[in-house]
Amino acid sequence: MTTALIIGAGSGLSASLARKLHQRGHRIILASRDTSDLSGLASETNAVLVDCNARDRDDMARLFDTVDAHGPLDVAIYNPSARLRGSVETLDPETVENAILVSAYGAFLMAHHAAKRMLDQGSGAMLFTGASAGVKGFANSSTFAMGKFALRGLCQSLARELHPKNIHIGHFVIDGGIAKDPADNPEYRMLDPDAIALSYVHFLDQHPSSWAWEIELRPQAEKF
Amino acid sequence: MTTALIIGAGSGLSASLARKLHQRGHRIILASRDTSDLSGLASETNAVLVDCNARDRDDMARLFDTVDAHGPLDVAIYNPSARLRGSVETLDPETVENAILVSAYGAFLMAHHAAKRMLDQGSGAMLFTGASAGVKGFANSSTFAMGKFALRGLCQSLARELHPKNIHIGHFVIDGGIAKDPADNPEYRMLDPDAIALSYVHFLDQHPSSWAWEIELRPQAEKF
Amino acid sequence: MTTALIIGAGSGLSASLARKLHQRGHRIILASRDTSDLSGLASETNAVLVDCNARDRDDMARLFDTVDAHGPLDVAIYNPSARLRGSVETLDPETVENAILVSAYGAFLMAHHAAKRMLDQGSGAMLFTGASAGVKGFANSSTFAMGKFALRGLCQSLARELHPKNIHIGHFVIDGGIAKDPADNPEYRMLDPDAIALSYVHFLDQHPSSWAWEIELRPQAEKF
Amino acid sequence: MTTALIIGAGSGLSASLARKLHQRGHRIILASRDTSDLSGLASETNAVLVDCNARDRDDMARLFDTVDAHGPLDVAIYNPSARLRGSVETLDPETVENAILVSAYGAFLMAHHAAKRMLDQGSGAMLFTGASAGVKGFANSSTFAMGKFALRGLCQSLARELHPKNIHIGHFVIDGGIAKDPADNPEYRMLDPDAIALSYVHFLDQHPSSWAWEIELRPQAEKF
Repeated sequence: MTTALIIGAGSGLSASLARKLHQRGHRIILASRDTSDLSGLASETNAVLVDCNARDRDDMARLFDTVDAHGPLDVAIYNPSARLRGSVETLDPETVENAILVSAYGAFLMAHHAAKRMLDQGSGAMLFTGASAGVKGFANSSTFAMGKFALRGLCQSLARELHPKNIHIGHFVIDGGIAKDPADNPEYRMLDPDAIALSYVHFLDQHPSSWAWEIELRPQAEKF
Repeated sequence: MTTALIIGAGSGLSASLARKLHQRGHRIILASRDTSDLSGLASETNAVLVDCNARDRDDMARLFDTVDAHGPLDVAIYNPSARLRGSVETLDPETVENAILVSAYGAFLMAHHAAKRMLDQGSGAMLFTGASAGVKGFANSSTFAMGKFALRGLCQSLARELHPKNIHIGHFVIDGGIAKDPADNPEYRMLDPDAIALSYVHFLDQHPSSWAWEIELRPQAEKF
Repeated sequence: MTTALIIGAGSGLSASLARKLHQRGHRIILASRDTSDLSGLASETNAVLVDCNARDRDDMARLFDTVDAHGPLDVAIYNPSARLRGSVETLDPETVENAILVSAYGAFLMAHHAAKRMLDQGSGAMLFTGASAGVKGFANSSTFAMGKFALRGLCQSLARELHPKNIHIGHFVIDGGIAKDPADNPEYRMLDPDAIALSYVHFLDQHPSSWAWEIELRPQAEKF
Repeated sequence: MTTALIIGAGSGLSASLARKLHQRGHRIILASRDTSDLSGLASETNAVLVDCNARDRDDMARLFDTVDAHGPLDVAIYNPSARLRGSVETLDPETVENAILVSAYGAFLMAHHAAKRMLDQGSGAMLFTGASAGVKGFANSSTFAMGKFALRGLCQSLARELHPKNIHIGHFVIDGGIAKDPADNPEYRMLDPDAIALSYVHFLDQHPSSWAWEIELRPQAEKF
């Protein structure tokens, strides 16, 4: 049984992904800064829970010790991000530093540890949740722009580096809000987490002769 | 039974698409400048064959008359393109004009006629085969760059225009050669047409809350 | 005395460029579909006037015969474009074809003829007026998107092809309206043609060790 | 007399910029982690030297105290970056964190402090030195990709935020090596620092009706 790791497991998207990957037969590991609300999802998907601050080097090293205890790592997914709004002169510099590290540096840490394992076994996939802020820098959003552009740069670099080594990189540009309750999403104004997850899984199903490294997803009515 | 139209039906990718869409229950219409080699595919997929020069206004109007005779148009796919290599001062201007019209203007003609029908019925999907030349203008490839950039501009414009009206646009950036014989594709150096077609079909399966308009596909070993 | 050719000479930007290039000591050739309004500018800049439909192969061949009669071609500028608005199903296909050819194919014709001359002499510059429509495909603007994306693809391809041969390509993404009367441009809501021309001239002044091929220009208040 | 601040002052590009801005009448402030080699440039350009680690919040706060002692800040330039090569699984995580902070977070700190001052006075310009790594993520260069993509995201966000407030943002994509000795640069294989500086100064000369926020510069022979 191969393992699927989901970091930033507290979101609705992570829950959809956990369910789909569980159905596909993966052993699920859910990592989050605070796993106290995740016991329901964990029992539903038979998942292991790990407390972990994604930007913390020691936490991430420990997380991958846990991963190693559960068999080969087939899929690693990075979801955390820190959004911060405000004009550049008013932002608190310390909060900005933390936000960049959560959005991008934590993703590097995952890639660093996951690549070691996947290169050894000769296969694997890493999927990263980006945002429209990673392809367009909006006013009063300099921090989120830095974090999400950095994440995209990381993924593009990793695709060039790891695709030839049979490790598949996916960067998902989520453009729009994600519905908290998919049943309450009139006119599909928000992205349905299950619908997003369908595209993540498509990347896992792509054949090595025809890999993508990026896709932009948005509601059909979204302006862009 | 809904109809799936494939223009530029003579390629291996078109054959893969025809088979997949036939399996999904669509009535297939295959259009090509020369359909004389397509009788095998046509009988395999129970398809209608139409001779048609995609850049010719009259031909395309006639093609859609045939489409109308076979029920609602659910999927329209545009594959033709004209590549021309050579430094800009050596190219034959008349050949260049024709190449641009085949690569981009024919796609507009399909979109023009298909949109009329899909807007009336309130749904549909149009898929366009692009190339890396549509996102990167290579030396000695000015003609192909013009044609494929124009195609991409058309698709991006149509996505903004038609997605809110429930018509799904897909632009596929094919980066690499397509294998003529998928059984002879060592190390997946070329794109397998069936593997490409899987991503076309994924677009048809996306939920309106999470639509993409573009994806880049390449062999895992391809430099980019 | 070297020659500077300006195609699409009827615009305010072309007038600014003609004056600046005249001041820099170039012999000016102004080409336009209709030169009847250009006699004032021609006498001010001591320019030759040529009637020419930029998308017409014969007209463009004749234009370069005139160019040859006036000495080495140092600078060639392409300004014509055809904008067309409307949803894709309502556009007139014949008008669309003409618009694409004016926006992009005419630029190819200029590049084709100018490259022959500039390659022989071992130097030169070609500058092309693009638009935000060339980097973003807007709804109800599929025709302009095709034309301006194609123009950008042409320029990027030419930059890769001709920069190493000492021919400088410039693609100017004009994002916003151009002021008809610069004295009536409150809060700089529109681009001042003289201000645009300053950046065109900057490209001519760049050193071969540090060439750009593209720049986006917009009013400081413009949303983008 | 207005002030021009150059952070990362130890490079050849910074020396060229210091000379040009000094000639234009600015009071020059040169900041660097190590200013011990900068006394020659400082006396040539009558500059103030400040020791400063650009990613350090306290250092940067102190730097701007010094700036305030020398009059209104008209131009602020950010040059530091940390390149790190190696495959993702081999990189040292602590070194990676530092590199991201130097390439991008220090630029944020400059923007944060400079914006306060420039917004108060109603004008100013901030120029940032990017790299091709900020638009293309290369293999074995994940760290530099993260830093330079983040820098570009910051600049694009700041352009949208601050251009309407009369503060001009410039992001310079330097694609190629910078010549240490411009006299030894056969066939212009590297960028000449004086030639680069010419484009920085062009941004300062642009009119508010026609501002750019980005330009890519490379040797005419550079592949891209």
